[in-house]
Amino acid sequence: MTRENANGELAPPACSVGPVVLSLDAEGGDHAPLEVVAGALEAAGPELQVLLVGRPQVVEPLLQEADRRYVQFVPSRTVISCLDEPAAAVRALPDSSIVVAAQTVANGLSQGLVSAGSTGAVLAASLLTIKRASGIRRPAIVTTLPGERGPVALIDSGANADCRPEHLLEFGLMGVAFARTALGIARPRVGLLNIGEEEAKGTELARAAYGLLRSSGLDFVGNVEGRDLLTGAADVVVTDGFTGNVALKLLEGSAHSLFNRIRQAANSSLRARLGGMLLRPALRGLRMSLDPEEYGGACLLGVRGVVVICHGNSSRRAIANALRFGANTVRRALLAALEEEIAKLRPSA
Amino acid sequence: MTRENANGELAPPACSVGPVVLSLDAEGGDHAPLEVVAGALEAAGPELQVLLVGRPQVVEPLLQEADRRYVQFVPSRTVISCLDEPAAAVRALPDSSIVVAAQTVANGLSQGLVSAGSTGAVLAASLLTIKRASGIRRPAIVTTLPGERGPVALIDSGANADCRPEHLLEFGLMGVAFARTALGIARPRVGLLNIGEEEAKGTELARAAYGLLRSSGLDFVGNVEGRDLLTGAADVVVTDGFTGNVALKLLEGSAHSLFNRIRQAANSSLRARLGGMLLRPALRGLRMSLDPEEYGGACLLGVRGVVVICHGNSSRRAIANALRFGANTVRRALLAALEEEIAKLRPSA
Repeated sequence: MTRENANGELAPPACSVGPVVLSLDAEGGDHAPLEVVAGALEAAGPELQVLLVGRPQVVEPLLQEADRRYVQFVPSRTVISCLDEPAAAVRALPDSSIVVAAQTVANGLSQGLVSAGSTGAVLAASLLTIKRASGIRRPAIVTTLPGERGPVALIDSGANADCRPEHLLEFGLMGVAFARTALGIARPRVGLLNIGEEEAKGTELARAAYGLLRSSGLDFVGNVEGRDLLTGAADVVVTDGFTGNVALKLLEGSAHSLFNRIRQAANSSLRARLGGMLLRPALRGLRMSLDPEEYGGACLLGVRGVVVICHGNSSRRAIANALRFGANTVRRALLAALEEEIAKLRPSA
Repeated sequence: MTRENANGELAPPACSVGPVVLSLDAEGGDHAPLEVVAGALEAAGPELQVLLVGRPQVVEPLLQEADRRYVQFVPSRTVISCLDEPAAAVRALPDSSIVVAAQTVANGLSQGLVSAGSTGAVLAASLLTIKRASGIRRPAIVTTLPGERGPVALIDSGANADCRPEHLLEFGLMGVAFARTALGIARPRVGLLNIGEEEAKGTELARAAYGLLRSSGLDFVGNVEGRDLLTGAADVVVTDGFTGNVALKLLEGSAHSLFNRIRQAANSSLRARLGGMLLRPALRGLRMSLDPEEYGGACLLGVRGVVVICHGNSSRRAIANALRFGANTVRRALLAALEEEIAKLRPSA
């Protein structure tokens, strides 16, 4: 494993000291390449170097006046759109920006991948190109939710629709490694998303996963209901990727809907309008604390690199935050923690 | 089928003209019996008569100074607590308030049941005592959500954790009957809760249900994601009872959490405090429009009576609203609409 540094020289393999190198899919996202490239230029520096992957004719013009010391361009030839069937497209288009970016991780040129492209394509490229980490059966997406008493890691929030109980146990272990390293929670409490507090509640899947999690050695607090997801009942909330994805999008939708209605209420009378004007700066802080752009995107856990999946509509600020988050996650040695957690479970893996 | 009227005389069977009679579990809910009895007294009148079921020593003292013309007392001897395993408790305690109340529906003494007791117990008592309606395999809970462009019916929101595709089709048919009669939507659009818009998305269950719903003759608009649940993308959103229950409680929890944070933000400075004071009346209207107490609770569809399940912490206002909602649902002949909808699908049923 070798990687090129920003000057094109070969550098030793990535480790947790020295600058972090991340690959960025310059053509993924609704506002690519402009906002993505701008985000790279904002975040890159001596401690975080970015490999920017895209078609030369699209990306290079945006780099003409840029400081190129910490941003290196890697050419690709095509783009996978969100209309393509992800796994088929990843196989058919090895020269697409997302696959080339994943290859730079697989080849050890960088330690991780950041993309605002189609989640399915990022997932497929990561699984097929970067490959699963040792001992992992089902890589899963972890999303950090803005809980009332601090961040809450929801895993799986969309990678695996149909799951078996042992997959949910694996999600718990990976979630704990993530919460310890990326969120700095020393002994994360793990909950199972379910429809009641009692052990016998829920689907067959949930009941079987309850048993596995209880005897896992993790700090398992039992079932967590939808209404407790944000209250800090658990630091890591485990669920299948179908329920997790519905929950995640519902949270986004309901916050959006509520802010819309508050805006309407604040326009309903002169008094309300004045109140809204005075309250606005305080609410702006609240909105930002709930904004997915602020906490940098979701992570695909269980592959041989740090993979950060950004919102499709990411701005330059969101991309820059995702890069910084990815770099911190590399520095805090997430992958080592994850393999260590899994090894406790399956010493033979 | 006969029923006693408020004076204890035998009256003809319930139909959609004349007063509606509903049975109310006076001992169900966190604030039973005080708030429940008060809610009954508030809602009862010439058009809505209430059979109040509970232990005489607990309930009758609350009725001493009440106008008894429209409220009749039916004695029971025990209570099922939310700690009991519901189906076992319903079988073991036929003289509990919820089972006696369900029996009054089964015997034709009333046209429906309202309870703020444990959802599991209401469900079990309804299934075991009131019984399933003709042609229905899986009764399901429908909840009316405060969508941005009007009410949205979410079905199943908690009765059936593990489902098969044909159950989801049945939920769609029942949801349409509910939306037409109880919500007054002439041609309800049906969506399937899923994790992407494309037909191939989601679990095996979701993909199979997609096919059944598409060829059902319903106005099927395809998949609806969590973020579109409240935007009016569909009037009826179909899902399994596990996902539906997680979604429902998450909506409640996120609205609660957001209002908490707004309150905090409005206390963060003098300016914000003044703004909050001015905005408060307008936000109060918004809070009420999002309040489950205002739209009367969830309905169990697919049994031989109207069953309204209230929140455990229902106030008298919530109980009164649930009774009024139940009465309207009886008047609008929900059961007939439901059996008609199902008969289209299974003419032999």
